[in-house]
Amino acid sequence: MNIVDLIIKKRDGLKLSNEEIKFFIEGTVNKSIPDYQISAMLMAIFLKGMDEFETACITQEMVKSGDVLDLSQISGIKVDKHSTGGIGDTTTLVLAPLVAACGLPVVKMSGRGLGFTGGTIDKMESIGLKIDIPMKTALDYVKKIGLVIMGQTANLAPADKILYALRDVTGTVESIPLIAASIMSKKIAAGSDAIVLDVKCGSGAFMQDFESAKALAKEMVAIGKNIGRKVIALITNMDEPLGLNIGNSLEVEEAVEILKGNVTGRLLDVSIELGANMLLLGKKADNIEQARQMLLDKIKNGEGYKKFLEFVAQQSDNFNGELVIHHAQHSFSLKAEKSGYIYSMTASQIGRASIETGAGRMTKEDKIDYTAGIIMKVRLSDYVNEGDEIAQIFSSTTEKCERAAKILSSAVNIKNEKPQTNKLIMDIIK
Amino acid sequence: MNIVDLIIKKRDGLKLSNEEIKFFIEGTVNKSIPDYQISAMLMAIFLKGMDEFETACITQEMVKSGDVLDLSQISGIKVDKHSTGGIGDTTTLVLAPLVAACGLPVVKMSGRGLGFTGGTIDKMESIGLKIDIPMKTALDYVKKIGLVIMGQTANLAPADKILYALRDVTGTVESIPLIAASIMSKKIAAGSDAIVLDVKCGSGAFMQDFESAKALAKEMVAIGKNIGRKVIALITNMDEPLGLNIGNSLEVEEAVEILKGNVTGRLLDVSIELGANMLLLGKKADNIEQARQMLLDKIKNGEGYKKFLEFVAQQSDNFNGELVIHHAQHSFSLKAEKSGYIYSMTASQIGRASIETGAGRMTKEDKIDYTAGIIMKVRLSDYVNEGDEIAQIFSSTTEKCERAAKILSSAVNIKNEKPQTNKLIMDIIK
Repeated sequence: MNIVDLIIKKRDGLKLSNEEIKFFIEGTVNKSIPDYQISAMLMAIFLKGMDEFETACITQEMVKSGDVLDLSQISGIKVDKHSTGGIGDTTTLVLAPLVAACGLPVVKMSGRGLGFTGGTIDKMESIGLKIDIPMKTALDYVKKIGLVIMGQTANLAPADKILYALRDVTGTVESIPLIAASIMSKKIAAGSDAIVLDVKCGSGAFMQDFESAKALAKEMVAIGKNIGRKVIALITNMDEPLGLNIGNSLEVEEAVEILKGNVTGRLLDVSIELGANMLLLGKKADNIEQARQMLLDKIKNGEGYKKFLEFVAQQSDNFNGELVIHHAQHSFSLKAEKSGYIYSMTASQIGRASIETGAGRMTKEDKIDYTAGIIMKVRLSDYVNEGDEIAQIFSSTTEKCERAAKILSSAVNIKNEKPQTNKLIMDIIK
Repeated sequence: MNIVDLIIKKRDGLKLSNEEIKFFIEGTVNKSIPDYQISAMLMAIFLKGMDEFETACITQEMVKSGDVLDLSQISGIKVDKHSTGGIGDTTTLVLAPLVAACGLPVVKMSGRGLGFTGGTIDKMESIGLKIDIPMKTALDYVKKIGLVIMGQTANLAPADKILYALRDVTGTVESIPLIAASIMSKKIAAGSDAIVLDVKCGSGAFMQDFESAKALAKEMVAIGKNIGRKVIALITNMDEPLGLNIGNSLEVEEAVEILKGNVTGRLLDVSIELGANMLLLGKKADNIEQARQMLLDKIKNGEGYKKFLEFVAQQSDNFNGELVIHHAQHSFSLKAEKSGYIYSMTASQIGRASIETGAGRMTKEDKIDYTAGIIMKVRLSDYVNEGDEIAQIFSSTTEKCERAAKILSSAVNIKNEKPQTNKLIMDIIK
């Protein structure tokens, strides 16, 4: 087999066979195929696409390129969850304790934030949790309290790392089959039997329009079908930050308030919908209404928050039972410059404002200020009077606060008319 | 400017500006753009195309990447000629002496053969001519006899070398704008004022169908227009070898016989047509009929062959006035296996048979046997009886002769019906 022939085949819009995709991925990992041929193939795939079968094949081969976790020690169906990334999107910290409290074990590997989206691992570190947990210990943790959330320790889908690094510098990132294969290869290698996906859609998401989000969701569900994993994908709206808090310890704070039953709203709603689908896939509920109610009950009876504290205790060195969350020293109150309806938000710009406070990274090497961030005081469609507080900004210096305020201010658009808004749960693909 | 942005722009089917193309070519040559980004761009160009303006820009930038020859010492209009490569295609050795004999100076840089196509430089070396001629000497030669043919000595269009090497291994060779830019950049760097192109079309050519050949011809003529060089492109048929002889010294032999007036046919006809257009562009004739007649007269009155001998003397160390051409020791006579019309030839396969005799190269490093090759005894549409000679094969061993005969035999198709044949001069684009 010759890689040039395979590039030409894909360039001409033909299908690659399982054997051919295997040859491409193996050659990528063992370096027998040079970068310049991989990138030509990636551009050909970007422009000519891959069908459902090819996408499942490349995912499978990416899984095989590294370790596949063995979760057989944990009894029952293992259900994972993944979000394509958003602003103020901390559903994992809300739903994981609730789902675990319902008796469905949660073994979750999470990532760090990059660009305008945050990452669960950073949020956990902001309250001093350990995230570097050996697999053996992780399994012990799950057996003990039914829940562990950790960074990626094993060598999962190394082919994806190589391909992603090349896509990033060759203009081939936004390919639906390649995005789907990248996400799914890591999730499948992480060993779960079923997966609930949260495909974000809107101005604060990677997929800005509904059609792209739906195509990505369908592609990932199809991979699951072809590979033999049950997958449900929710398409959820990201035209504004999901929670009101943006920034690492600020988001933990909001999750805690939700688990305590003190806060409701979009973040709770999406968390419940994702968690309920996890319970369904894990056969802990007979139908979605029952699953939702089980989760809401765990808030009401305090078992969800109790599970959260057990989780914190388990992944901390010396937790005294009291969670202390710090805010950055300087704060700035952003006021509405005119009266009217909050007509639109450029959520990605709000994410960038939060990076400006110190809460996020532009490059993988950037350090994060865990205490920095933004608390939004308004939602889309809210009516504000001139001078009303739109957001509170936290940072280590007043300069950073002011820079963030400037970006934030231009991201929030006030008009006299009320906007048409999208539904929060835009679609469910299964 | 950022190369990733430019790749994305082209990937999305947008036009690149002159500045952007300049950035791409400069970065390619100074190595600030890595191979994997160049190849992603090449695949994007392959699949999304380039318009006439972009193609002219990339050609111009490729010209600027190296030396541009200064032919101002030679008075009058300098007209170059280029063929996209064929089988038994030795028009340069026929037309260059004839055109020079008509008073139009010819300064021609030629290439070596590769794959199933031959190269003028190899043919010259087969009769002991020097091809490595310093520019100063070359100019002296032209001043003296009006003619020099040499290998590429100067650093012409180095960007083309880098891009071509990458295209060859990334499945991006057959792109009309990239092929056009590659050919034209070297021709323009070679310093001529006007260019006659011979775009081969058929089973023995790079462009197998008329539409592709026409598109390439139009693209090259457009580059000339946009860059300010007069270009005429002939599309000529290559459904069978152009001359009857294939192989280096064998082709020189046929050229000599044509110049002596002993042989006519397709090779003479195409040579006259190309040469006549050179005379027109060089303002040595008022119309094409007159130009053709001038060239034919130079055969009739012996001045063409005289010029050829002057050229041989000039580029040889010790030429005694007598041209001795050797054939390989072993020969094999291929006979028709049945009676009928020569219905079709796979000319590229005939080229491959000639490689098998030792007359060509598959890789740049292969050595050539100058005396090996094939003399075809039939033309398309000819009627043969079973046992009639189809071709005579020359090689250094009987084994090579037999292997070549086997390939050649399967390349020539005999049927009871007479074939429909294409015109020799299929089109002229100017």
